[in-house]
Amino acid sequence: MPSNYRNFRHSVPWLLLLLEAVFIIAFYFLHPNDQRFMSDISYPAFQDVSHMVIFGFAFFLAFLKRYGFSSAGFNLLIIALGVQCSMLAEGLLPFRNNRNFLERITRAAVSLTAVVISTGAVLGKANPVQLILMTVVEIIAFHVSRWINVTFLLVQNNMSMKHVHLFGAYFGLAVSSRFSEPPPRSEKKASTPKSDLLSMLGTLFLWVFWPSFNFVLAEGEANKAIYNTYFALAVSAVAAFVLSVLTTKDGKLRMADIHSAVLAGGITVSLVAELIDYPWIAMILGLLASVIAILGSHCLQNCWNPVLKIHDSSGVHFTFGLPAVLGALARVFLCIIKNWTTEPSLGYSVMYAIGAFCQTASVALIIGFITGLILNLKLFKTIPVSKYFDDQFYWEVSF
Amino acid sequence: MPSNYRNFRHSVPWLLLLLEAVFIIAFYFLHPNDQRFMSDISYPAFQDVSHMVIFGFAFFLAFLKRYGFSSAGFNLLIIALGVQCSMLAEGLLPFRNNRNFLERITRAAVSLTAVVISTGAVLGKANPVQLILMTVVEIIAFHVSRWINVTFLLVQNNMSMKHVHLFGAYFGLAVSSRFSEPPPRSEKKASTPKSDLLSMLGTLFLWVFWPSFNFVLAEGEANKAIYNTYFALAVSAVAAFVLSVLTTKDGKLRMADIHSAVLAGGITVSLVAELIDYPWIAMILGLLASVIAILGSHCLQNCWNPVLKIHDSSGVHFTFGLPAVLGALARVFLCIIKNWTTEPSLGYSVMYAIGAFCQTASVALIIGFITGLILNLKLFKTIPVSKYFDDQFYWEVSF
Amino acid sequence: MPSNYRNFRHSVPWLLLLLEAVFIIAFYFLHPNDQRFMSDISYPAFQDVSHMVIFGFAFFLAFLKRYGFSSAGFNLLIIALGVQCSMLAEGLLPFRNNRNFLERITRAAVSLTAVVISTGAVLGKANPVQLILMTVVEIIAFHVSRWINVTFLLVQNNMSMKHVHLFGAYFGLAVSSRFSEPPPRSEKKASTPKSDLLSMLGTLFLWVFWPSFNFVLAEGEANKAIYNTYFALAVSAVAAFVLSVLTTKDGKLRMADIHSAVLAGGITVSLVAELIDYPWIAMILGLLASVIAILGSHCLQNCWNPVLKIHDSSGVHFTFGLPAVLGALARVFLCIIKNWTTEPSLGYSVMYAIGAFCQTASVALIIGFITGLILNLKLFKTIPVSKYFDDQFYWEVSF
Repeated sequence: MPSNYRNFRHSVPWLLLLLEAVFIIAFYFLHPNDQRFMSDISYPAFQDVSHMVIFGFAFFLAFLKRYGFSSAGFNLLIIALGVQCSMLAEGLLPFRNNRNFLERITRAAVSLTAVVISTGAVLGKANPVQLILMTVVEIIAFHVSRWINVTFLLVQNNMSMKHVHLFGAYFGLAVSSRFSEPPPRSEKKASTPKSDLLSMLGTLFLWVFWPSFNFVLAEGEANKAIYNTYFALAVSAVAAFVLSVLTTKDGKLRMADIHSAVLAGGITVSLVAELIDYPWIAMILGLLASVIAILGSHCLQNCWNPVLKIHDSSGVHFTFGLPAVLGALARVFLCIIKNWTTEPSLGYSVMYAIGAFCQTASVALIIGFITGLILNLKLFKTIPVSKYFDDQFYWEVSF
Repeated sequence: MPSNYRNFRHSVPWLLLLLEAVFIIAFYFLHPNDQRFMSDISYPAFQDVSHMVIFGFAFFLAFLKRYGFSSAGFNLLIIALGVQCSMLAEGLLPFRNNRNFLERITRAAVSLTAVVISTGAVLGKANPVQLILMTVVEIIAFHVSRWINVTFLLVQNNMSMKHVHLFGAYFGLAVSSRFSEPPPRSEKKASTPKSDLLSMLGTLFLWVFWPSFNFVLAEGEANKAIYNTYFALAVSAVAAFVLSVLTTKDGKLRMADIHSAVLAGGITVSLVAELIDYPWIAMILGLLASVIAILGSHCLQNCWNPVLKIHDSSGVHFTFGLPAVLGALARVFLCIIKNWTTEPSLGYSVMYAIGAFCQTASVALIIGFITGLILNLKLFKTIPVSKYFDDQFYWEVSF
Repeated sequence: MPSNYRNFRHSVPWLLLLLEAVFIIAFYFLHPNDQRFMSDISYPAFQDVSHMVIFGFAFFLAFLKRYGFSSAGFNLLIIALGVQCSMLAEGLLPFRNNRNFLERITRAAVSLTAVVISTGAVLGKANPVQLILMTVVEIIAFHVSRWINVTFLLVQNNMSMKHVHLFGAYFGLAVSSRFSEPPPRSEKKASTPKSDLLSMLGTLFLWVFWPSFNFVLAEGEANKAIYNTYFALAVSAVAAFVLSVLTTKDGKLRMADIHSAVLAGGITVSLVAELIDYPWIAMILGLLASVIAILGSHCLQNCWNPVLKIHDSSGVHFTFGLPAVLGALARVFLCIIKNWTTEPSLGYSVMYAIGAFCQTASVALIIGFITGLILNLKLFKTIPVSKYFDDQFYWEVSF
């Protein structure tokens, strides 16, 4: 082990301590007190989102054979750090809100989904210092992008949170494009049946809690958000099995397809949940989301990524990115259908919706690209390709 | 791999797509809208039941060494498909109800328990096409049986849902009786410590969420349903350890006994939870349920199943069937004790309760037997005995 | 296998049956009925605590390579038995309370945390008979200690429950000091990456549900208890990574450090959650708790334990004991700061708080020591050191 890596690892704690000191001081000035009362419903919603983000993603990402400790451990680190950062960033920006602490923590956990998704794109490639810096930059960029949407593009506050998957996926891809690609036949990049089953455990958690996730962001009609999400997820799950069989040799199922496609419906519906009046619309969206996720996975992995030299470790582009794009399109489409007779300024509102989508995606791509460039400076000692996907580089592992 | 299996596997997606198309069209006509509001309590109950059915059963059934992907994966498929089917079947039958979508989904998830239990009886033996068809037939048969109970046997709507374990277990056994038995010393039929531990994980989930399950079905006195279920489960768990030691050689514990017996109390009490006024009655029922589950497991596996040539992969007969029978008897018994001085028509109501029980069990057995016969037609290409309990037959598995 | 062990194992079921008979009879006389209604919030809180204690601790303690069945199984046994015992013990002591059954079960599950923590100290060393007896003695001792606090030291009823971690840790240590030490280089004492990952699964569960745990015990300001716990846990998690890197060779992370330190903040804040007005105080407490847990782990394991010949299997002293001591000190400190101008009798109330702390710790140590002495009588056939940490001694294990 070259000594510069050892020295380098010793910089992780000082970076974390510095950030924690800043956060504690900032909390001292920014969040002196909270006098609001808790509604009964905000408590189960808080628990569900917290459970989903901390636990679900930890195991969702634990599919690599030799990277389980890092997947589960760094996920906890990023969320524990990011929740504080997100609350501060949202508090510093001039959002109008009157939420109690519990709701703010819940929203911070929701916004952390963006970071966790980005982490998925660089899974096994970024070292902890890079992950920590990425977390801080991404959270700030996400809230700034939301603030632009709310202030200039007339997007509602809750709606602006719903771009979280889109932002996370494209930010992650842009960062990932600056990392070296792993060797194509890396033995460590594979999964084992045990690790795939643990990842299935995480996936089922995310599946079960996704309705709660969309419920937290719903404006008013929370009931609708829950059941539409459930229907979309159910059809997505069925479609995932259909498409996995159709796209593999011999008609066998592939676990990786199931992992990515069962959630697609929840992501797509996230953006439109309270606009959908009839369950069958949610079901069709769930079907389309699953189709786009699995076909996307084949197109992207075979054509797009090799050309652009992007290595997307856990397939966040087709798991989260494409379904979120579909959701944004569905929102525009549903707005037009619902309002085309009633609203005179329909053209404007459609333009604004498209504008918000494009603004979010471009901020994600641009800031992500810049972050990727900075993180690959010699200063941050990118880990060598041969040490990718290996717990032993960061953890004491006893076999 | 003979080509007819490959062709056969390619029929799975078309069957699923056909069903999904039917479901979406049916939802278009049957469930146009939902104007009812959500009560605060229906949301945690929905989450708990959904969590239990999707996650708990997925891992409860994942005890086979080489069948973890299929146990967890097909469970998700069956539930995602079955929930839609169950909502339609309940909507088409002339039940009087005024429930919102969230409560309907919760009830659909509860009714799916029957299918998941039946799946346990043919675990590792039925192929996906057989499982999918079984799901659709069983859900319809279950709701028809409920409708008969409600209409002709004066059973309350919620009470009719409580026969779900009974129906599932005997339907599954009847279907299972038509499948070939696996070779007695099949190496794949075994479990490993790792898979047993994953199954324990699922069992603990079911244990924790069982009070929520009974709470959903309680008529009025939800409080009682929760605490009586908890006491019954607690005594069941203790009794499972007692009986496991007493019935094994050397006085060691057997994990399979614990898996099946810890839940027995919850199933038994399910049918009587709101009739029980004193916790000690629930505790005694929990004890009896555990006794019947473990003694049943020894009697059935050694005497009954070999004679009837039934192979019950995960022991649903003693895990779910016998405790449900005990629960039905306890209900009759408690009705008599509570009402024998006050109700003049006691004889009638006891007759009706017994009638509902017998009707449910016989519909389950008869329709299950017919389903088993049909599923074993050459058309459905039953998998050969040598391929039983093997993920590799359906999944791309990398070791 | 010597025959006396076989005979010995056969005494487990009779002990359990005897206890169950006593409990059922006691419930018959003590808890005849419950007429109180359930509030909406008590149901999710009950589920969360139940989930955390049954499921979280089962896997939190499942880190030993060959002791997974026993960790998860005996945890369920102890809780199922202990909840009944705790409800009876609390019912027999003259506490004034007006709680419904659901709240009583929740509180019983909370008080069981003490036993589960003590179990951690003798994990792999005590046989089931010893564990069962320890459970009964510890639960009674804990409630008696609470009763002394409430009656003589003016501690509020809920506050008296918050000493649960302190009591559990020191009771467990005292019991553990009477068991023989395992050989220093025992191969079975180690963990594997798989078992560490399962333990991480349990840890994340405890992390996620800890706010619910403190919420249950909060007096009035439940909202505060939840968010202060969350902040403390978040900073604890970050600090755990910081300190793990700083205290290991080569700057690698150690999974065992993460397991113990991420929870420290929740334990410390447990005692003061509703006294804290500003999140930054909770954050600083979380940081200190994590520091004390990790530094404590190094000091205790290298200096303290070898001298006192205590073997603390899962490190309950630094995971639960020291953070609880810190919390008790923080409580005194915060009381002084908040009330030093307003309350004339401040000196008395500080004395009482310190008195309650000392009384709890000394009852735990003394009764624990006596229990340890009794459990190591020849009568209870302590297992030989060579059979420590081995599932095969209690379970039928098929490899």
